[in-house]
Amino acid sequence: MSPSTILTLLTNITRNTRFTLTTNYSTMSATKKTRTHPPYELLYWPSIPGRGEFIRLAFEASGVSYKDTSNESKDGINAVLACKADDLTIDSDGNPPAFAPPALRVPGEGKNGKALVLYQTPSILAYLGDKLGLAGEDEAEKHWILSHALTVLDLNNEVHDTHHPIAVGKYYEDQKEEALKKATDVRENRIPKFLGYFERILKGNEQGKGKYLVGGKLSYADTTLWHVLNGLKFAFPKEMEAREKEFTLIFETFYPSVQEENGLKEYLVSDRRQPYSMGIFRHYPELDRQ
Amino acid sequence: MSPSTILTLLTNITRNTRFTLTTNYSTMSATKKTRTHPPYELLYWPSIPGRGEFIRLAFEASGVSYKDTSNESKDGINAVLACKADDLTIDSDGNPPAFAPPALRVPGEGKNGKALVLYQTPSILAYLGDKLGLAGEDEAEKHWILSHALTVLDLNNEVHDTHHPIAVGKYYEDQKEEALKKATDVRENRIPKFLGYFERILKGNEQGKGKYLVGGKLSYADTTLWHVLNGLKFAFPKEMEAREKEFTLIFETFYPSVQEENGLKEYLVSDRRQPYSMGIFRHYPELDRQ
Repeated sequence: MSPSTILTLLTNITRNTRFTLTTNYSTMSATKKTRTHPPYELLYWPSIPGRGEFIRLAFEASGVSYKDTSNESKDGINAVLACKADDLTIDSDGNPPAFAPPALRVPGEGKNGKALVLYQTPSILAYLGDKLGLAGEDEAEKHWILSHALTVLDLNNEVHDTHHPIAVGKYYEDQKEEALKKATDVRENRIPKFLGYFERILKGNEQGKGKYLVGGKLSYADTTLWHVLNGLKFAFPKEMEAREKEFTLIFETFYPSVQEENGLKEYLVSDRRQPYSMGIFRHYPELDRQ
Repeated sequence: MSPSTILTLLTNITRNTRFTLTTNYSTMSATKKTRTHPPYELLYWPSIPGRGEFIRLAFEASGVSYKDTSNESKDGINAVLACKADDLTIDSDGNPPAFAPPALRVPGEGKNGKALVLYQTPSILAYLGDKLGLAGEDEAEKHWILSHALTVLDLNNEVHDTHHPIAVGKYYEDQKEEALKKATDVRENRIPKFLGYFERILKGNEQGKGKYLVGGKLSYADTTLWHVLNGLKFAFPKEMEAREKEFTLIFETFYPSVQEENGLKEYLVSDRRQPYSMGIFRHYPELDRQ
């Protein structure tokens, strides 16, 4: 059987059945784009970007509709609390509880046609990446995209720890002294290490022309990096202003380009984009470069 | 076309071509098990378990051979250093650099039949999980397994931070005061939160009979959780001895069962299993329960 015969056959199969096929053929992505999407539900805390934002950006960039449950319905918060309830061992659809939000609920895609519930930001992004066409063109790109997104999310965690280095359950005011030490290290050593890495990735990916981390089109690694850069600019404006000159591909090409992408551009000026407040990215002037 | 006809067809295709198909049919796993594996190479620091251990356990549990490059060859460390070199933008096979080890090199599976190089522990586990038959029976299980592994690796990071809460680039001795505060919070609040979560997951997964987090067979979520439990027992022996009574499914069923699994049992007593020393899990008596 020739590759093109196999491809035609597979295309017909994917069009006519419910199960998902993923292959290394980039031409398959056309099929994925046109499929009908289930009514995705994001389960996350209301009123903050938080880790839910990485999921929102994937949906907004792909133009696929989703319900931002706790922001869109009055009692939506109950669904968030329910999926992570301390006494939950398994839900009525056969899903394990979430350790913490965000979670993604996908009606019809779980066991026996019930709702599927996934948790953990990178796992949700890996799942959605395939469905939304934001996970590259082949298996290599798919895994590089996941790896880069994981690295950005590691940076996201380190930024969170600048105001909570000792205990996530305590107030910033109870760990200010340690926070200053942690923030100093993150600003002076960790941020330049991460930015230097992504500057090199952009440089190495010629096909992306500085606009994409992997290949020649937008992926969830790009939207994830964009949001952390945006959050860093909010949290550490002086530090980032100084750093921008060091990482020109990131700040002169990648950053402005991603926020002009179809879907993202409209979203970022809409009232669906939540302002930063007391979440991961917080602006404490004393933690910024002095 | 009937599902069984499609299945037969797909089975023949996967046997005869190089590209990878993943479907929701659990019966496909038999095909995956019998395929010939490429000569996998783990790129990680020598002489410590570290984050490389999560990859080693996946290989050992599945009985698939791999080269532990830096431990098996005298100049293997050079390959580890090369994949993360500070001036690398793209390697000669078209792979991006690793942000940090571990990385996985898979000859023949990259772009144009060249070597594929992946980095980030969860991304490598997601890739290998499919290939080694450690990623469940369908798409729901596959994503739950990734989600649980990510949660275990979050705990792994928090345990690392008990001795390095302020700066990863400084010595423990330079942050002992903060380490004591961090370790106290992790022991008193975070470890029981994570253990309580996994106790509930084991309880909710009736098919696993307390032995598996997802479904009725071993996954890389199980091997990953097992290693962190083992590391916690080394780092905080008094704390863990006290906690064992609270989480009986984990410590009386799951933990002893996983270490008796084929492949793991032999590995854990072999000299390939590196001892804990100055890596993620360190035994500082002053940080343990007093």
